[in-house]
Amino acid sequence: MIAVVKKSATPEQLDHFISWIEGRGYKTNVSKGDNETIVGIIGDTTQIDPFLLESMDIIERVQRVSEPFKKANRKFHPEDTVVDCGHGIKIGGGNFQVMAGPCSVEGDNLFRIARAVKAAGATMLRGGAYKPRTSPYSYQGMGERGLDLLMEAGGELDMPVVTEVMDPRDVQLFLDKGVDVMQIGARNAQNFPLLKEVGKTKTPVLLKRGMSGTIDELLMAAEYIMSEGNPNVILCERGIRTFETRTRNTFDVNAIPVVHHLSHLPIVGDPSHATGYTRYVRPAAYAATAAGADGLEIEVHDHPSEAWSDGAQALTPSQFADAMKRIALIREAITADLNDGETSGTTLGEGTTKVTKVGA
Amino acid sequence: MIAVVKKSATPEQLDHFISWIEGRGYKTNVSKGDNETIVGIIGDTTQIDPFLLESMDIIERVQRVSEPFKKANRKFHPEDTVVDCGHGIKIGGGNFQVMAGPCSVEGDNLFRIARAVKAAGATMLRGGAYKPRTSPYSYQGMGERGLDLLMEAGGELDMPVVTEVMDPRDVQLFLDKGVDVMQIGARNAQNFPLLKEVGKTKTPVLLKRGMSGTIDELLMAAEYIMSEGNPNVILCERGIRTFETRTRNTFDVNAIPVVHHLSHLPIVGDPSHATGYTRYVRPAAYAATAAGADGLEIEVHDHPSEAWSDGAQALTPSQFADAMKRIALIREAITADLNDGETSGTTLGEGTTKVTKVGA
Amino acid sequence: MIAVVKKSATPEQLDHFISWIEGRGYKTNVSKGDNETIVGIIGDTTQIDPFLLESMDIIERVQRVSEPFKKANRKFHPEDTVVDCGHGIKIGGGNFQVMAGPCSVEGDNLFRIARAVKAAGATMLRGGAYKPRTSPYSYQGMGERGLDLLMEAGGELDMPVVTEVMDPRDVQLFLDKGVDVMQIGARNAQNFPLLKEVGKTKTPVLLKRGMSGTIDELLMAAEYIMSEGNPNVILCERGIRTFETRTRNTFDVNAIPVVHHLSHLPIVGDPSHATGYTRYVRPAAYAATAAGADGLEIEVHDHPSEAWSDGAQALTPSQFADAMKRIALIREAITADLNDGETSGTTLGEGTTKVTKVGA
Amino acid sequence: MIAVVKKSATPEQLDHFISWIEGRGYKTNVSKGDNETIVGIIGDTTQIDPFLLESMDIIERVQRVSEPFKKANRKFHPEDTVVDCGHGIKIGGGNFQVMAGPCSVEGDNLFRIARAVKAAGATMLRGGAYKPRTSPYSYQGMGERGLDLLMEAGGELDMPVVTEVMDPRDVQLFLDKGVDVMQIGARNAQNFPLLKEVGKTKTPVLLKRGMSGTIDELLMAAEYIMSEGNPNVILCERGIRTFETRTRNTFDVNAIPVVHHLSHLPIVGDPSHATGYTRYVRPAAYAATAAGADGLEIEVHDHPSEAWSDGAQALTPSQFADAMKRIALIREAITADLNDGETSGTTLGEGTTKVTKVGA
Repeated sequence: MIAVVKKSATPEQLDHFISWIEGRGYKTNVSKGDNETIVGIIGDTTQIDPFLLESMDIIERVQRVSEPFKKANRKFHPEDTVVDCGHGIKIGGGNFQVMAGPCSVEGDNLFRIARAVKAAGATMLRGGAYKPRTSPYSYQGMGERGLDLLMEAGGELDMPVVTEVMDPRDVQLFLDKGVDVMQIGARNAQNFPLLKEVGKTKTPVLLKRGMSGTIDELLMAAEYIMSEGNPNVILCERGIRTFETRTRNTFDVNAIPVVHHLSHLPIVGDPSHATGYTRYVRPAAYAATAAGADGLEIEVHDHPSEAWSDGAQALTPSQFADAMKRIALIREAITADLNDGETSGTTLGEGTTKVTKVGA
Repeated sequence: MIAVVKKSATPEQLDHFISWIEGRGYKTNVSKGDNETIVGIIGDTTQIDPFLLESMDIIERVQRVSEPFKKANRKFHPEDTVVDCGHGIKIGGGNFQVMAGPCSVEGDNLFRIARAVKAAGATMLRGGAYKPRTSPYSYQGMGERGLDLLMEAGGELDMPVVTEVMDPRDVQLFLDKGVDVMQIGARNAQNFPLLKEVGKTKTPVLLKRGMSGTIDELLMAAEYIMSEGNPNVILCERGIRTFETRTRNTFDVNAIPVVHHLSHLPIVGDPSHATGYTRYVRPAAYAATAAGADGLEIEVHDHPSEAWSDGAQALTPSQFADAMKRIALIREAITADLNDGETSGTTLGEGTTKVTKVGA
Repeated sequence: MIAVVKKSATPEQLDHFISWIEGRGYKTNVSKGDNETIVGIIGDTTQIDPFLLESMDIIERVQRVSEPFKKANRKFHPEDTVVDCGHGIKIGGGNFQVMAGPCSVEGDNLFRIARAVKAAGATMLRGGAYKPRTSPYSYQGMGERGLDLLMEAGGELDMPVVTEVMDPRDVQLFLDKGVDVMQIGARNAQNFPLLKEVGKTKTPVLLKRGMSGTIDELLMAAEYIMSEGNPNVILCERGIRTFETRTRNTFDVNAIPVVHHLSHLPIVGDPSHATGYTRYVRPAAYAATAAGADGLEIEVHDHPSEAWSDGAQALTPSQFADAMKRIALIREAITADLNDGETSGTTLGEGTTKVTKVGA
Repeated sequence: MIAVVKKSATPEQLDHFISWIEGRGYKTNVSKGDNETIVGIIGDTTQIDPFLLESMDIIERVQRVSEPFKKANRKFHPEDTVVDCGHGIKIGGGNFQVMAGPCSVEGDNLFRIARAVKAAGATMLRGGAYKPRTSPYSYQGMGERGLDLLMEAGGELDMPVVTEVMDPRDVQLFLDKGVDVMQIGARNAQNFPLLKEVGKTKTPVLLKRGMSGTIDELLMAAEYIMSEGNPNVILCERGIRTFETRTRNTFDVNAIPVVHHLSHLPIVGDPSHATGYTRYVRPAAYAATAAGADGLEIEVHDHPSEAWSDGAQALTPSQFADAMKRIALIREAITADLNDGETSGTTLGEGTTKVTKVGA
């Protein structure tokens, strides 16, 4: 962390500031320029609030030079994290997985959809039992009965189940039902009590980026979960909010290689929410795969126009089946060893991937 | 709500769509243009998910023509809502209130700060006992002990206390302690379980806009609280996230008159979070007042550089005292009857304010 | 276009409004709901300013239902446009091209770089002679001498040259030099005199999206060029400005399929500007290709740290060569006929592509 | 400027980097932490492209610590700049001016509107002769004939005329006509040839912030004009583009005190474009005034629904007259000497304003 001290500061004020910093256990390094003096603050600065320093009269500006996250930081954990989701399915470190299923669990059609996505190559089953809806008048999900249906379908098809938890009071129920992966939705990306609650378990967490969350905030949210003791975090880019209105969100595909650079955690793409329209889901899924995502989460429904929520962004099973073949070809394209002296797998993080397993 | 039907739709497809809509209890109106056909959907369309309609093959686009919120809508409730915060303090409908105090409760200095802000004209005491912090390594607040100190200070000074609740499991504790106004922070603007929980009480709620929340989403969050039975909602504009980095957030001062146009609920401005720097807090406070806000929430601290959180944006008591005088003058400027045939109070909502009470 | 009329409007006011609209040559359709009346306005509404209608007392809101662009609209021109860039290179309609070269022309190393990119499979040469720089103190480009070097290199290697024009007074010089494709940069995305000037020529234009330009505004800028008589417009997605700071811009990869849906014009991706960091250029290039882009524009430099501008985002020739192989594989993945009854090429526009030619 | 060097850099690489920097005439200061080394680069770093340094293998990150603008920087020019607009009207340094008039010049009604705004207290006349319109099919302005009408009205009423120039080829015409203040619109905020062209004159320039322009970019655009020799720059905040759609733009009222902090140049607010709806123009005008703006630019029209462009955001003359009285009261509120030992005028820049002149 560096603090830029104003030219107008007196030597006494500067000394006082340096003593104050050093009194908190940090070392300092002072560099005087013509128009300002820079004080380098050396040590574990994750504990310092930069806004606090900026409130001091003599301080012009404070800038972090190192990331405020530690457990999620690739610098301190260079190897890719591989998260074991159960049923033999691992994600990260070259293991690519596709989670598919309906937006909301509606009833027995879940089994039909689940069989279709499994047949097409999906390795994990997604579906919502508790739905965060912008309107209190919209359908809010089947609740516990939805969880039961999901676990039954996951058991029948030997697929781990991914489903969203919205309320810290529900976490124990999710554990009791045996949910394989608990999803934290975009609206709860900074719901700290919920993050802490899932952090107290060992169940893998699929953590979605907030609608206006920076990549650093996504990693700080992961840090909340990890600092409570749960290292099994899978990140998810699902689109951010911008001024563009032709799609529901703007898919920040750059976030995929940026996360691979900054963190060892796996990251998947969610092309359904990132676009909001069926007709754009496949191009976005291909883009996420090509950018090096460790997996995808895709909504599939057999009669989209009857879906109880978000039907507008679901693929049909046959669209999904076609997409899965192209996704596999794209994975090959970016991970192939081209046998010409160039290192392969260059879209991925700094820990180069040697082996890629699509699915189990 | 209107649905734009593609030119390529056959008459049979159009008929089928209209039957489907009418089968759900809506009336329709069909308007054929050269390049598309528009179907007006008449009735209570808050129940329809526009994304669902857009998923249908023959639909080009769906647009709402009426707001998706009802209880918060000025159309159905033209009179300004006045929220009674206790201790004789009302907000809205011409009653302007200033909530001031430290960002975090730190200990006995709370009493000193509270006396200072009361002396300067603040009518409500704000302070955080539970703090939502981006980093798990940052100070998280005093918790229950902080609530006790706040209630003691509020009692001593006869001021309603405003303080943030982050976890639905804490709502009962806040009720037990007698907190006058429960604040929902920006990060919980779409934490629906929390919104529902405070909605089940009658305690006034200060509801902050989310960092990337639209004004419509702010009103939908209010709708969540109101639809559970609690009509006492005070909205708060506290800055949104944009590309600008010279301030912590971008203060969307337009939101104040827009909310007054769309809703009957009071709205206050939070210039501390909206700027993030002490030096910009006063101009932003004046701007919010001039734009017609029903009140302000301002952080005040007697030794900002010792504050445990967000000290960078606190005013000193003397800065606050100066500001309060100018704020009162600005209130007068915008509400004065200029005696010249022009209607006064034109910055406020469509229900023109006749009487303005600054403070109690 | 529809106008939502307030409930408070009298029948006389509504009649007056309808007469006013019809007096301008439009037909109307009136649909009365419980809370508002909707007036459909039928005819060529590209001439109506919706903000003007919204200024009327009785109007609640105005919404377009059809796009404000015509010549660039796929509805009125369903077939993909193929732009002939000279030297036998066509782009669009299944023809995929890669434009590569240095950010700025610096001197003779241009020839070395041009040979390298051609050897790796690039089919067009890009390079800047006139550079738009945020700071007046930054290097502004070689100017006319740079154009001469580019044209010499393009001639020697039989590649069309793409280079940016910033000033309407320079367009004639670009024509005189024989520049093959004139690029309009993001900062000039709404520089209407410049758009009109290039619109008066027949030279292909590579039109970049503005930093905060919507997709509709990009298409309206194309409309400016086309309405002057030049149909040869190639669009370019190069990243938009958002709150995220870990990359220089946010690459809106969704824009690629959205443009294919709305327009018949080709669109290329610029992963260099869309990321700003060499380490993210390749993943972004793969993502753009996978999303169905008609081509790429990539900065390549043999000694990036000596480049005079934007060196931070250039690939080395060997990185570029590796990338080109993977790009070709990704093109195959998304356009392959999978021989299973599913339509191929589904990532592209509604006019399905049968044949894909990578390069000439 | 500081460069953060990766932990993985060898001592030789670090030495090589330091030599490279020092070879360019800068001094360095090296600070070694546990996880990275920070190299402070001391000297005039406005010449260094931070992206270039970041392209080097051993560099983790580069951050500016001083602003990239010099002539516009308050640090090097502490006193407020006062711009003389002619006709005895000065702006900045405590002189507050209101520019009012129609969006577009339409004909003789200009004189009627001009007389009305002057009667209400406006001191400068604004009106558009050349209009930047998103659609090529929208009205583009009267051109030279419009300039003549404006100059005639300005002469008759003894008011300086502010009008937009869009094309560098038109600057000479504006000089020949004697335009008092040349406006650069938001869409041309980074049109560098145009900025340079007006920079070669001595005519005051009203420079609008770009729709997605940061405050730093606004000041860099001013720097372009000033570096060509024209110091007479008036900045204008007119709203930025965000995700909010209930207003045309988001009025970044924070920008006013931020500009006063960073720069000595005057800044005015444009509440008409910042909101886009007549009903919000007055609250936004009051907010800008309260935040310390040096003036306002407001659209006024006597029959808004007949205006040829942007009529939706114009005030009527009587609305404007009411607003002017409140604006004067707000100016008093923020600049009053409250006689209590507190410094007055605290919303303004660091050079405290002693005397405030509203109007001439």
